[in-house]
Amino acid sequence: MRERERESEREDSHILTSRHPHTLSHQKPTPTISHTLHTQQSTCFIATLCVCVCASVRHSTMHSCGWLMSLSLIALAGNTVAAAAYKRTERNCSLSPPYLPSTAVNTTLQLQELREQMLHQNIYAYIIPGTDAHLSEYIAPRDARMAFMTGFTGSAGTAVVTQTKATLWTDSRYWVQAERQMDCNWELKEDVSIISLAAWLISEVPSGGRIGFDPFLFSLKTQEDYVLNLDSSNRSLKSIPENLVDKVWNDKPSIGAENLTRLPDRVIQRSWQIKVEQIRNQMRDNPYQPTALLLSALDETAWLFNLRGSDIPYNPFFYSYTLLTMDKIWLFLHMNRVTEELKEYLNTSCEESLCVQLESYETVRKHLEEYVAQPGVKVWIGTEYTNYALYEIMTPQDKLMTTSYSPVLTTKAIKDDTEQRILRDAHVRDAVAVIQLLMWLEKAVPEGKETELTASEYVNMCRSKQSDSRGPSFESISASGPNAALAHYSPTNVTSRRLTPDEMYLVDSGGQYLDGTTDITRTVHWGTPTAMQKEAFTRVLMGNIEISRTIFPSGTRGVNIEMLGRRALWEVGLNYGHGTGHGVGNYFGVHEWPVGFQSNNIPFREGMFTSIEPGYYKENDFGIRIEDVAVVVPVQTKFGHNFLTFETVSLVPYDRKLIDTSLLSSEQLQWLNKYYETIRELLGPELDKQGLREEKDWMLRNTEPFLSPGSSASVCSSSLTLLALAIALLHNII
Amino acid sequence: MRERERESEREDSHILTSRHPHTLSHQKPTPTISHTLHTQQSTCFIATLCVCVCASVRHSTMHSCGWLMSLSLIALAGNTVAAAAYKRTERNCSLSPPYLPSTAVNTTLQLQELREQMLHQNIYAYIIPGTDAHLSEYIAPRDARMAFMTGFTGSAGTAVVTQTKATLWTDSRYWVQAERQMDCNWELKEDVSIISLAAWLISEVPSGGRIGFDPFLFSLKTQEDYVLNLDSSNRSLKSIPENLVDKVWNDKPSIGAENLTRLPDRVIQRSWQIKVEQIRNQMRDNPYQPTALLLSALDETAWLFNLRGSDIPYNPFFYSYTLLTMDKIWLFLHMNRVTEELKEYLNTSCEESLCVQLESYETVRKHLEEYVAQPGVKVWIGTEYTNYALYEIMTPQDKLMTTSYSPVLTTKAIKDDTEQRILRDAHVRDAVAVIQLLMWLEKAVPEGKETELTASEYVNMCRSKQSDSRGPSFESISASGPNAALAHYSPTNVTSRRLTPDEMYLVDSGGQYLDGTTDITRTVHWGTPTAMQKEAFTRVLMGNIEISRTIFPSGTRGVNIEMLGRRALWEVGLNYGHGTGHGVGNYFGVHEWPVGFQSNNIPFREGMFTSIEPGYYKENDFGIRIEDVAVVVPVQTKFGHNFLTFETVSLVPYDRKLIDTSLLSSEQLQWLNKYYETIRELLGPELDKQGLREEKDWMLRNTEPFLSPGSSASVCSSSLTLLALAIALLHNII
Repeated sequence: MRERERESEREDSHILTSRHPHTLSHQKPTPTISHTLHTQQSTCFIATLCVCVCASVRHSTMHSCGWLMSLSLIALAGNTVAAAAYKRTERNCSLSPPYLPSTAVNTTLQLQELREQMLHQNIYAYIIPGTDAHLSEYIAPRDARMAFMTGFTGSAGTAVVTQTKATLWTDSRYWVQAERQMDCNWELKEDVSIISLAAWLISEVPSGGRIGFDPFLFSLKTQEDYVLNLDSSNRSLKSIPENLVDKVWNDKPSIGAENLTRLPDRVIQRSWQIKVEQIRNQMRDNPYQPTALLLSALDETAWLFNLRGSDIPYNPFFYSYTLLTMDKIWLFLHMNRVTEELKEYLNTSCEESLCVQLESYETVRKHLEEYVAQPGVKVWIGTEYTNYALYEIMTPQDKLMTTSYSPVLTTKAIKDDTEQRILRDAHVRDAVAVIQLLMWLEKAVPEGKETELTASEYVNMCRSKQSDSRGPSFESISASGPNAALAHYSPTNVTSRRLTPDEMYLVDSGGQYLDGTTDITRTVHWGTPTAMQKEAFTRVLMGNIEISRTIFPSGTRGVNIEMLGRRALWEVGLNYGHGTGHGVGNYFGVHEWPVGFQSNNIPFREGMFTSIEPGYYKENDFGIRIEDVAVVVPVQTKFGHNFLTFETVSLVPYDRKLIDTSLLSSEQLQWLNKYYETIRELLGPELDKQGLREEKDWMLRNTEPFLSPGSSASVCSSSLTLLALAIALLHNII
Repeated sequence: MRERERESEREDSHILTSRHPHTLSHQKPTPTISHTLHTQQSTCFIATLCVCVCASVRHSTMHSCGWLMSLSLIALAGNTVAAAAYKRTERNCSLSPPYLPSTAVNTTLQLQELREQMLHQNIYAYIIPGTDAHLSEYIAPRDARMAFMTGFTGSAGTAVVTQTKATLWTDSRYWVQAERQMDCNWELKEDVSIISLAAWLISEVPSGGRIGFDPFLFSLKTQEDYVLNLDSSNRSLKSIPENLVDKVWNDKPSIGAENLTRLPDRVIQRSWQIKVEQIRNQMRDNPYQPTALLLSALDETAWLFNLRGSDIPYNPFFYSYTLLTMDKIWLFLHMNRVTEELKEYLNTSCEESLCVQLESYETVRKHLEEYVAQPGVKVWIGTEYTNYALYEIMTPQDKLMTTSYSPVLTTKAIKDDTEQRILRDAHVRDAVAVIQLLMWLEKAVPEGKETELTASEYVNMCRSKQSDSRGPSFESISASGPNAALAHYSPTNVTSRRLTPDEMYLVDSGGQYLDGTTDITRTVHWGTPTAMQKEAFTRVLMGNIEISRTIFPSGTRGVNIEMLGRRALWEVGLNYGHGTGHGVGNYFGVHEWPVGFQSNNIPFREGMFTSIEPGYYKENDFGIRIEDVAVVVPVQTKFGHNFLTFETVSLVPYDRKLIDTSLLSSEQLQWLNKYYETIRELLGPELDKQGLREEKDWMLRNTEPFLSPGSSASVCSSSLTLLALAIALLHNII
């Protein structure tokens, strides 16, 4: 799955918190819907109505030209599926009365009630982030407070309410969506920087005024950035641990009833007791001598106890915190979902060092406060995932020990032998599903009935038939033609294009399996690609191969080698605007932090798994991404020790039609042929086992070794043939 | 010149300040003298005396085995030049009375006087860093306070004195030197982390006790790290702006008498007035609205006013600060060195916005304090070069605006057309000097009389004959055989090896010229290199070429492409332990921050100059480094715009004997041949002009184009020859 953004320059990184605090950046994202529209502004002026409508707009031509632009976009795209888009789809608050599309949500009531709450708290403004208390990448419906207040359901944004105004900040991916979903109570700010948000707060809140926020929904960095930007303005933040939106959200979805589950022994090498001891050893060895470790990220607790839940979409997590000391384990969760069997599994009836004390989820702050009040204690936290509500109570400073990531996250990053084996296994079965999709599309697309949506459903169906399947690991990106050039595109009824042999098609999808999480992208063309498409695809592939085959010392950072994914593109003046890969693991979130190629990822060590996913996107035309998951493995070198390389564990061949082998170096060609041999070796038996004869033929056809087109071998062989001919001639004469 | 270290992992970077705050790292450095000794510990046990001597040592076998180790080192090296080393060269404080070599300095008196000063100040400990108030990379003798107190003259270290103890912290490069130069008043700590220093302070200073420091000698980061590590220990820092060492240093060298000089117009494109306006524009455009800019680094003021001085060895700088507002310019310096002509040049007799107010150097803190006391002011500082003495007076926080680097440093990083042209010119003349050295060594070394020192002197002499020469830009690294594998080695009478055709030789040197600063490293072999030497050299060269020829988008960070310098080495399990390059410019310091390949360098833009210097070091055997200076230039690409690449401006051919062309890719070979063509084009006319016929022949001989050894062309041509033969035969028969 494509990472949200690429590396940013460090100096001015005051960004609004996204659900995943590490993956947002202030850098210009890849071409997005709104960009597309923006560049079509000139097209807009051709239309009859446009000039006057546009003239009346204050913020941006895009807002009120939405209707015509959608029209021209669709006209350009030459696609008639989304007939609904011919209606005006975006609000126009400058009309009287304002025009609101049917998708807009009436937020008058909740705003009124929230403002009353704000008066009680004596605050002038209230900040509503789109995240949860665990700074999760995906959030549960019950945490969608920003969406409840604004109507806007995009995955990134921050809302702020004052007594007279209500404003949403979101990035360019979501501007159109926000204009469709919000009513005229809300103003849209096309920005995501805390600098901009703070400047707005200073302009709207009177001097001396206080700005409320829920500290459970702020990362330490977010809080710090607000303080920095409000500094010396005489406006201050007020931490209000009781969420004000929750107070007015009467029909807020309740917590799921489903019980937590423990992982079966066959997918486990280390029991939770062993893991606890491993973590305690790291606490013991730490020179700062922490007495406790607080775990806040949902995958930390899930990993430690080998437990899974279903609170978060696509992520098998459950709401939880853990406080671990050298002789106690406190697990904070919703206790009604813990069966007697699980209680036994967790040793909840004893009080020794390997007995888990279950505590109610809501008591974590109070409990931590009591713990910190004791003399001589020091709590270790990972700053990237701890919310400000838990941080602010750990005073004085010497009660706290911080690293970017907790030892659980850094330990979890290196997979043990069992985890490595079963994650490889999951990729074998996953490849079967993806091959089924690609084979089916090859036949079905020319018949003209398939769309991005049906393809997306098909791959889900294929995955669901594989053993230990637990559903998709994220919403598939199934994107045809220009849609594939849009950042974070997933098809909807409105946008879904019909698939045709005339366009490129990109499918980025993944599965959750009991033994592993997968994530793979393939880009294909069922007709005749242009020379540019073929060159761009080949160069993206060269990037993927160059990273995959590189040899590097153990401990090298991903950010220091990720340029290999871009270099072949750079050579001809191309590039892509997102990250090059992220960690992935055993039945967790598909973006498994802190492994990957960004500057805040940890150095690569043997046993880590990461995606490798360079791409190229041509606005309004096509998108290419080639994504594989690879494991970091040791490699023998001529002179040195402790060197590593990648081994690709995704096992689906690339579209042969799009590869121009004349661009590949002999090393790249060799790597590719070896990879295809591996696919045959590992996937052949699995396809046989599943009785998939046609799929096996397809796989064999698509993994034929490539011959080097311009190699010396071929050139020379021709001259050698000539030589042989000459000699033969000679013989004849003699 | 080799950068001090390579990239470090970010999490625990609490390092003692070096003179150049950016270039120290906690990472294990390349093999150093002390490492060499350490690994020879086993050799030591063969010697008769060693077992008992070593047994009596607490800290490390190295200290008291110094004498024998020096002996064994020399024996192993098979070199008899340094006969002096047969004497015991390191102190032994465990003997009674202690043994002190003649190089040890008696520090009893200054320690006694300093301790009296400390009593007056009511401090338990006093920290003495080895830097100056401008956090300069090189310091003047009058700033060598650490050396005055300890006797130790190494370029990195921190001394701490209490009433009963005196301790020096330095890194492994300097452990042997410290043991030779310090008397037994001093203990040596083989560490450079502030964590370790703070732990020692906590153990030596009673609870509630204060630790004094000179805030002029602390960077903000250093102060912050001390505070962090002393935090909650109940020991606090006390800032004492009057340096206590200076109070007891009676014969402290006085400030140089030499007048400042202005650069001639022929090397200037922008007058100081234009530069001032450029910087003011950046202040005006900054959203934080600074009212003043403080310049602390010595090259900032030198650049702004097109002035140079001679206060710092190898660096044409003068002690100075600048405080620039929208309508005032205050220049703080030693006024007796400013001639009437210079006063006129600086418009010192008026009070307009382009008139410079000269102020005494010592008044900067007081002046800044007065400025900050005014309402509505905000001072912009670059945090990397501002000392804590100036930082601490800028309160409250809203009087301050910080970026890592001042706008002067980031503006200066991009050379204007004139600067680019004259810096290229300087490299043409510099290449003449280096070629003279290499040609001379080829003839002189086999005669057996030359040493590392004489070679170093020879290249200095050659440079001094070039026009506009202003001496060497740093102390040459002239290193033969195992000496070249030592970090930061420069030959001394004791260590200088005789040069022989049996060993590799590395020479890293540079010149100051009125128009530019140069820095180049060549590694040669006058006999028959081993296969390993040839392979390592070729792979280092491949690294240099891969960086040089890479194409990248404008704004790419050096740290993201520097792995190209290592990749060919990594492939066979080799690596190097230092940085890959640093900025360089027009008659400034040879390491011109903030351009380069480290994580705190700024992104590359057109017009920046950087060194590119991969290497490889085989402990006790040889060292290889190939360093060139390159300028960032725009490049045409097939599809995109705004892409850059490097153009090498150093113009000295590499040792052909050490290049295994079969390892090079065709692109690398092509690059190399093109580079050699450029050398011929640019250097040929210069050698003609200087009447250096022999040097020109040498240059032409050494820039012959390489043929691709294993290329398809050659393979095929042989078979074509065969074919021709066959046909000829055929003809004959017929």
